[in-house]
Amino acid sequence: MLKPEILDPQGQAVQRALPRLGFEGVREVRQGKRFELELDGPADEAALDKVREMAETFLANTVIEYYTVRVEETDEVTA
Amino acid sequence: MLKPEILDPQGQAVQRALPRLGFEGVREVRQGKRFELELDGPADEAALDKVREMAETFLANTVIEYYTVRVEETDEVTA
Repeated sequence: MLKPEILDPQGQAVQRALPRLGFEGVREVRQGKRFELELDGPADEAALDKVREMAETFLANTVIEYYTVRVEETDEVTA
Repeated sequence: MLKPEILDPQGQAVQRALPRLGFEGVREVRQGKRFELELDGPADEAALDKVREMAETFLANTVIEYYTVRVEETDEVTA
């Protein structure tokens, strides 16, 4: 996501449009990218360190963006 | 995020680049949009219904995308 101090024109455009669509009560909208990475192995600490390195060096532009890494269980589909 | 059955060229481009950058072990990458909405009032059930309606009708293209709504506490900054 864009850092708080960085202007977010896309988020502002969404925010301005909401009242016109009948949606009140939204103080601010921020828009950003979301990546979902499916790993071969377990999401253990070593894997998460690697993912943080990917985010830091490639997936995020850390000059203007911050990132958060979160583990989410996939809904296993058993046939 | 794009629905699983929808081709995700951006995610695939990221996935192909990772090994070249020295990152192995990532089976799949999906890329999508993330919106953070700061509400005037509490994130109660009525407010969440409104946010779901915003997502369904405006923030997501539900023909090709699915969305999830999650409440996140903001880190209150007290001066």
